[in-house]
Amino acid sequence: MSLVIVGSVAFDALETPFGKTDKIVGGAATFAGLAASYLFDKVKLISVVGEDFGEANMRILTARGIDVDGVEVVPGGKTFFWSGKYHNDMNSRDTLVTELNVLADFDPKIPASYQDCEYLLLGNLTPQVQIDALRRLNSKPKLVVLDTMNFWMDVALEDLKTVLKQVDVLTINDAEARQLSGEYSLVKAAEVILDMGPRYLIIKKGEHGALLFGEGQVFSAPALPLADVFDPTGAGDTFAGGFIGYLAKVKSVNFTNMKNAVIYGSALASYCVEQFGTERLQNLSKEDIEVRIQQFISLTKFDI
Amino acid sequence: MSLVIVGSVAFDALETPFGKTDKIVGGAATFAGLAASYLFDKVKLISVVGEDFGEANMRILTARGIDVDGVEVVPGGKTFFWSGKYHNDMNSRDTLVTELNVLADFDPKIPASYQDCEYLLLGNLTPQVQIDALRRLNSKPKLVVLDTMNFWMDVALEDLKTVLKQVDVLTINDAEARQLSGEYSLVKAAEVILDMGPRYLIIKKGEHGALLFGEGQVFSAPALPLADVFDPTGAGDTFAGGFIGYLAKVKSVNFTNMKNAVIYGSALASYCVEQFGTERLQNLSKEDIEVRIQQFISLTKFDI
Repeated sequence: MSLVIVGSVAFDALETPFGKTDKIVGGAATFAGLAASYLFDKVKLISVVGEDFGEANMRILTARGIDVDGVEVVPGGKTFFWSGKYHNDMNSRDTLVTELNVLADFDPKIPASYQDCEYLLLGNLTPQVQIDALRRLNSKPKLVVLDTMNFWMDVALEDLKTVLKQVDVLTINDAEARQLSGEYSLVKAAEVILDMGPRYLIIKKGEHGALLFGEGQVFSAPALPLADVFDPTGAGDTFAGGFIGYLAKVKSVNFTNMKNAVIYGSALASYCVEQFGTERLQNLSKEDIEVRIQQFISLTKFDI
Repeated sequence: MSLVIVGSVAFDALETPFGKTDKIVGGAATFAGLAASYLFDKVKLISVVGEDFGEANMRILTARGIDVDGVEVVPGGKTFFWSGKYHNDMNSRDTLVTELNVLADFDPKIPASYQDCEYLLLGNLTPQVQIDALRRLNSKPKLVVLDTMNFWMDVALEDLKTVLKQVDVLTINDAEARQLSGEYSLVKAAEVILDMGPRYLIIKKGEHGALLFGEGQVFSAPALPLADVFDPTGAGDTFAGGFIGYLAKVKSVNFTNMKNAVIYGSALASYCVEQFGTERLQNLSKEDIEVRIQQFISLTKFDI
């Protein structure tokens, strides 16, 4: 039984009010894989990189026990590159460079050893690639979580609607929930989106936390109030990785476990933003995670 | 022992995507007083209205057992009037008309029967009026809660800083916390503001809930996700009234009770926005409030 994550592995160059980086390792599958690796030990990635990615960078993943057999290395190819600059509020950013490179022709291949997949995270990608990955699994996973973004709603809405019919959980942000549903109220938006296929919807609200809808219930998780958000890149992917990693660990999908999974995803995301890129996610301890879970408990607990 | 609320009693004319009203009763003290009246039975208002306010409108307050001996009626005067139009997102609004009328010369008088005040809410008003009200009490109340807004930070910052030194709890929204502190991070903003005097700070985030800071702790309360926000006018005042009303009821000020008070304030505010003006706050039952408190519990509870 394994957790398979399909998504980008990339180079990012980042500029925030706290500083800037040269090309560092990023990508949705990288963040999600690292996060999931703290909760579950059979994490397998499907992605594509260029020859420029190199062994040292791949070791960031393998050092955490992540299986990279499904990460195709294209000879002579260049790795997907994204560069962005965050504004002072850290909630908005400008994309400076997007070079798709080998990601442009990404055709996800499932190694035979990945066919034991029971938990599948389809990271933010062209919906057609998400559909292909799902179709190439011999049996439907126990749980499929899909992340997407406004861009695909703009340019590939029909494909997105097709894949939505086949997933169990959708994670998007509040603006995207409003765009996808045409409803401003997030309660109404959730109703519309749950009618599109997913059994559960997670609406990510950045510094305001996340809402989980499903089984006729709602759960609201805060984000941890932080003195400094150093670099928000990858926070959403980290959340998704922690979320599905927790569910793979507890092996049971219901609203109660989903709520805990949201808290674990939020805790890991709160670490992600403390340093540039994946830096903070490379060396967490079990105690680090436990400390933060306790902070979420004390942040939200009341006794009426 | 009583709870005294100083603030405006007003006429509002509102326009929202759901409809519009003629002049209806509004004002910070009105919303706060009605909310508090569901939790505590000795609520006393200090305000000023014109002769146009009339007995029927005053009965909205007295019907809930609220003492209006401190509501001065100015012969021949006109009641404060505000008119506003909400945009589709309900988070932003345009002020169409502001006629201060008798509020322009509001000089708060404390009836002798109000000198038993142990809980004092200074609603959003000129800071000088808040200072005067506080000074005219014979003894310092057990708890002073102050609400204010960005306008007073722009035009009366020094007076505001003076009154902040004398209060226990400040309630403002996130943009105001950032303006008052000069810090974007709400954690850093809270540190700066708590250094200005208050022992506790509540940052109201509208549909994203509220944060409570104090005693070195943080508490995050969500807002109830609602399908329709009919009219947000008065939600913040209702929150403040429910907050202090709960504390007056339990008669003990500490972080544990403050957290519950935030939940009660949020529950009452969630009713406030369901209808125009004070309409929904005029006829709540104990069961209505209990039902909503249970919704907040199920919305936030997880068990890791």
